[in-house]
Amino acid sequence: MAGFGIYGLGRMGQAIARRLLRQGHEVHVYNRSPDPIALLAKEGAQSAASLADLVGQLEAPRCIWLMLPAGEATDQAILALADLLSPGDVLVDGGNSNWRDAHRRAMLLEQRGVAFLDVGTSGGVHGVERGFCLMVGGPDEAIDILDPVFDSLSPGRSQESGGPTPPNPNPARRPGFVRTGASGSGHFVKMVHNGIEYGMMQAIAEGFDLLAATATPATRASEKFDLKLDAIADAWRSSSVISSWLIDLAAAALNSDPKLSAFAGRIEDSGEGRWMLHDAIESNIPTPALASALFARIQSRRDNAFGNQLISAMRMGFGGHKEPPART
Amino acid sequence: MAGFGIYGLGRMGQAIARRLLRQGHEVHVYNRSPDPIALLAKEGAQSAASLADLVGQLEAPRCIWLMLPAGEATDQAILALADLLSPGDVLVDGGNSNWRDAHRRAMLLEQRGVAFLDVGTSGGVHGVERGFCLMVGGPDEAIDILDPVFDSLSPGRSQESGGPTPPNPNPARRPGFVRTGASGSGHFVKMVHNGIEYGMMQAIAEGFDLLAATATPATRASEKFDLKLDAIADAWRSSSVISSWLIDLAAAALNSDPKLSAFAGRIEDSGEGRWMLHDAIESNIPTPALASALFARIQSRRDNAFGNQLISAMRMGFGGHKEPPART
Amino acid sequence: MAGFGIYGLGRMGQAIARRLLRQGHEVHVYNRSPDPIALLAKEGAQSAASLADLVGQLEAPRCIWLMLPAGEATDQAILALADLLSPGDVLVDGGNSNWRDAHRRAMLLEQRGVAFLDVGTSGGVHGVERGFCLMVGGPDEAIDILDPVFDSLSPGRSQESGGPTPPNPNPARRPGFVRTGASGSGHFVKMVHNGIEYGMMQAIAEGFDLLAATATPATRASEKFDLKLDAIADAWRSSSVISSWLIDLAAAALNSDPKLSAFAGRIEDSGEGRWMLHDAIESNIPTPALASALFARIQSRRDNAFGNQLISAMRMGFGGHKEPPART
Amino acid sequence: MAGFGIYGLGRMGQAIARRLLRQGHEVHVYNRSPDPIALLAKEGAQSAASLADLVGQLEAPRCIWLMLPAGEATDQAILALADLLSPGDVLVDGGNSNWRDAHRRAMLLEQRGVAFLDVGTSGGVHGVERGFCLMVGGPDEAIDILDPVFDSLSPGRSQESGGPTPPNPNPARRPGFVRTGASGSGHFVKMVHNGIEYGMMQAIAEGFDLLAATATPATRASEKFDLKLDAIADAWRSSSVISSWLIDLAAAALNSDPKLSAFAGRIEDSGEGRWMLHDAIESNIPTPALASALFARIQSRRDNAFGNQLISAMRMGFGGHKEPPART
Repeated sequence: MAGFGIYGLGRMGQAIARRLLRQGHEVHVYNRSPDPIALLAKEGAQSAASLADLVGQLEAPRCIWLMLPAGEATDQAILALADLLSPGDVLVDGGNSNWRDAHRRAMLLEQRGVAFLDVGTSGGVHGVERGFCLMVGGPDEAIDILDPVFDSLSPGRSQESGGPTPPNPNPARRPGFVRTGASGSGHFVKMVHNGIEYGMMQAIAEGFDLLAATATPATRASEKFDLKLDAIADAWRSSSVISSWLIDLAAAALNSDPKLSAFAGRIEDSGEGRWMLHDAIESNIPTPALASALFARIQSRRDNAFGNQLISAMRMGFGGHKEPPART
Repeated sequence: MAGFGIYGLGRMGQAIARRLLRQGHEVHVYNRSPDPIALLAKEGAQSAASLADLVGQLEAPRCIWLMLPAGEATDQAILALADLLSPGDVLVDGGNSNWRDAHRRAMLLEQRGVAFLDVGTSGGVHGVERGFCLMVGGPDEAIDILDPVFDSLSPGRSQESGGPTPPNPNPARRPGFVRTGASGSGHFVKMVHNGIEYGMMQAIAEGFDLLAATATPATRASEKFDLKLDAIADAWRSSSVISSWLIDLAAAALNSDPKLSAFAGRIEDSGEGRWMLHDAIESNIPTPALASALFARIQSRRDNAFGNQLISAMRMGFGGHKEPPART
Repeated sequence: MAGFGIYGLGRMGQAIARRLLRQGHEVHVYNRSPDPIALLAKEGAQSAASLADLVGQLEAPRCIWLMLPAGEATDQAILALADLLSPGDVLVDGGNSNWRDAHRRAMLLEQRGVAFLDVGTSGGVHGVERGFCLMVGGPDEAIDILDPVFDSLSPGRSQESGGPTPPNPNPARRPGFVRTGASGSGHFVKMVHNGIEYGMMQAIAEGFDLLAATATPATRASEKFDLKLDAIADAWRSSSVISSWLIDLAAAALNSDPKLSAFAGRIEDSGEGRWMLHDAIESNIPTPALASALFARIQSRRDNAFGNQLISAMRMGFGGHKEPPART
Repeated sequence: MAGFGIYGLGRMGQAIARRLLRQGHEVHVYNRSPDPIALLAKEGAQSAASLADLVGQLEAPRCIWLMLPAGEATDQAILALADLLSPGDVLVDGGNSNWRDAHRRAMLLEQRGVAFLDVGTSGGVHGVERGFCLMVGGPDEAIDILDPVFDSLSPGRSQESGGPTPPNPNPARRPGFVRTGASGSGHFVKMVHNGIEYGMMQAIAEGFDLLAATATPATRASEKFDLKLDAIADAWRSSSVISSWLIDLAAAALNSDPKLSAFAGRIEDSGEGRWMLHDAIESNIPTPALASALFARIQSRRDNAFGNQLISAMRMGFGGHKEPPART
């Protein structure tokens, strides 16, 4: 790989750039708004003034890593770069794209001789230090070209989770990295990863919801325990069956503020959960925990549910039941 | 049956008394607060000044129908009546008691020679005109004594749901009435009835929730339909697969006010759904629709969910995601 | 309406034709396989030898009712009829089409001056006697042309569900019939109807599943009741809160065979549940009961679930738990 | 602590004994069947011939750790030991007891001057090397007596999960160890831990279920990917958001056999999930992911579901739908 550029410097794009810079890579960056470019330039990145400038700064074979919102923004960037890149170059979509878009995009670029990789990127903003888990779909030759980048972005041996479970059977298998196969498979596997993440977070939330209820004088006073949620979360981080990075993060948040007062509890979802639910049903796979997690997020953002009003109205209709008044 | 008394004149107790009065029965009534007694006295009931007075007004074999809140109130009444009633009398628990309480209560009364019937009573306040669906557990001889009452309370042939489905195979089977078997089975069957009711209401709520969302300019403007929920509900009342009394009630409510503005959407639950979920799990029967219905009701009454706050906190932890602010 | 034809004589197409014939309509019928044509000809229908013949037999304005499998079969028929029909004619899609297809089909036909109606048709094979519930989307003028057909197909006043709920506020509102609005809205409302049907059926199934478990010596012997499921279902048909056509059908099935031995319990789904779940999520409406019903059906058709094997493997991994062997 | 005994040498009891022996503790062991005693004697344990012998071998203050099946076995042991132990001794219930039993047991023992600790023990058979996560309820003075044991059983600093999340704020907080408060709180927190575990495992299962479906030629051939589930699981172990011990275990199982042929997919549940669901509903906390996980396990063990048969029967009733035949 002779030249490496990144287009899209949101939180994740910056994190990718930063980890590569710290590992000694030459990184060229471009973004629509200039502030993140300036920020990364101070950290050693080469700044580009336009997409054309970004391409122009790189030597062949050029590699450009897109880290943009899924959908239109990514499509527009691919269309623009299809005209700017040359045969032998590689374009990476590292964002949370729908895997169904990958095949079409790969076909478009293939006509220009440009290879396309769909890379599911997990690890969040902590990836700068912790490394990223990379799920890479697309042709092996293009992956080979980017091998030095994948080697630096992935976590390395030191970050493997420890414990007495058997080590990876193939010592040549790079931690936090997998070639998933044909175009689209990288984002497909990332979608499934995120679907699992939804279910895991919901499971953790339900547990702490019950702990919090039990810790509160309002419920079941006779059996009330004076539970310290931060201490419990800390204990679970080590050697428990549920020890996990998400429990680490829950513990960190609870240690900062056991009441989590900064969070209103209205949870966004970013698409992958919906896509996976849809794909699972098409494949005749029941995913009730995922559905539960998705519905809980949707419900958390609703102020009122017409369906609930109708249940109250039916209860009034058959039994004369009066429901409690609205929240004020 | 020589004398019939009712103790407990809430909405359902009044409805039972009223239907019996209209069908020419002599009905003696007692209640802790005097107003409902006076109300029913105007409609022809004999009023009692105390539980002892109620028992004293009746001739043997006495029949007393309890229509009290489940739990302690019913237990106290049964204890008091165990001392007042005589061998050969019949005590009916027509409320929404937990079926597990019936066996113990029947044993207690049996020691005094008093028979106990656990009667699941469905039909709501409309039962005055429409009749009640009665699920009766306990000894056949005691049920036989109360036959004239059950005959008047149950709906009669004219209320059978119509349509081309085969008529009841046994013409001797009384509509809206079933002898369920041993003590407790009447309330057990009523519990299952209510569990089905929870799931049906949730299903209807989800459908109208989507119709309401689609009827509103706020969502998916390009595909928005100008749906009239009241007209749709009316259409579904006749000949559709989902035609049902609950759809009748939904239609009535929507015709009164398509916005259901009087209802805040905070739904109570009265116990049977919880009991059935518990029993189903003990019997290794999955009941996901019932669980969904119960969770939706619980969630509708919560202002905040600590678990949701924790999901937001974890999302901030790994991805720096900022969630929307609290409701104001 | 001068001439009325039906293309597609499956169970529902035959039922539509039969009800219209019984009410004195002249009905022309066509089907790919000849047997149903011959059957209906004996009942008074005019048989057509081809789609062109069907159109040729009718006088303008022609009305053709399609009752075909959703998807390709319906699309092919519409394409063929677009060439055969004339301006002023009306084409009805009475099948279970996805509502998203209606707009495109209406546009295509509008170019030829042919009106398109998307009609959700509920009521099943019993509609011959009981009438059909019709949810009609499309232009009012075209609906007006078909008014005599809709009048005969819908149930009529006598089939309205009874009871003490308020009658339809607008006496001009025809029972079992609703004009839903723009193209696609008829099938949209039918999709929601079927989604509610899924949830209702799941709720009923869960209840009888528990009753059956309780009626069986295998579980919880001390609390076993000797429940008669057919008698219970019959009782619930009248005056209970869950009285409904589905309970009528459940009672009929249980009266035929309380063991339901003819049914293996592998349940198909026909699309609408999946579509509604998808649409609900797009509209940010949680539908957990529908999801439960859909997942239960999918699961009922699976012989093995890899995910369950993995849970067993993880349990073996952390706790050495040995699971029971496979079904034999 | 002068003397330490273990009663109950199942998989977990042996693991506890083994870790303590390896860390230099003197451990006395007893079990109903003699083989595990002999096994541990070879590893350095002192073997007891009876419960009385076990108690007799220890010096005051004696500590006995019970690792028995929840329920009757544990109750009988506590009753027997209440007579054998002396004031100042400590009895530990390290098994998966229902937290509601702890208060009663603590009261019983307190009358004899014996302290009772309810210790939730997580970590499985790997705890020998990895350490156990301990959730300890009961009086502080008794916990203090057992401090050397807890210190050896818990994982130690080296087993803390790594990564860039903030370290435990209180350096004095021992990893994998928490004092949860009053009697019962240790098992309560363990119950919640296991409930979270259920949900996490279900989330992982759903993800791999979809990966397996996609990896198989049977579904959606055009979009089929040739996914290597073992390699994907290995990649997720490092730096992904879902990195966790359960993913480690899933990876180990899939690397042993990507088909998991040894597992039939009939999953047991051991009580805690049911207890938590019950408690959550009592505390008005919705736990849909937990319910999903529990229902999936129950369903995995059923050969047939009467409710599903009834849905098929209703579908036949209204639409004449013929379902696929039974599994053969």
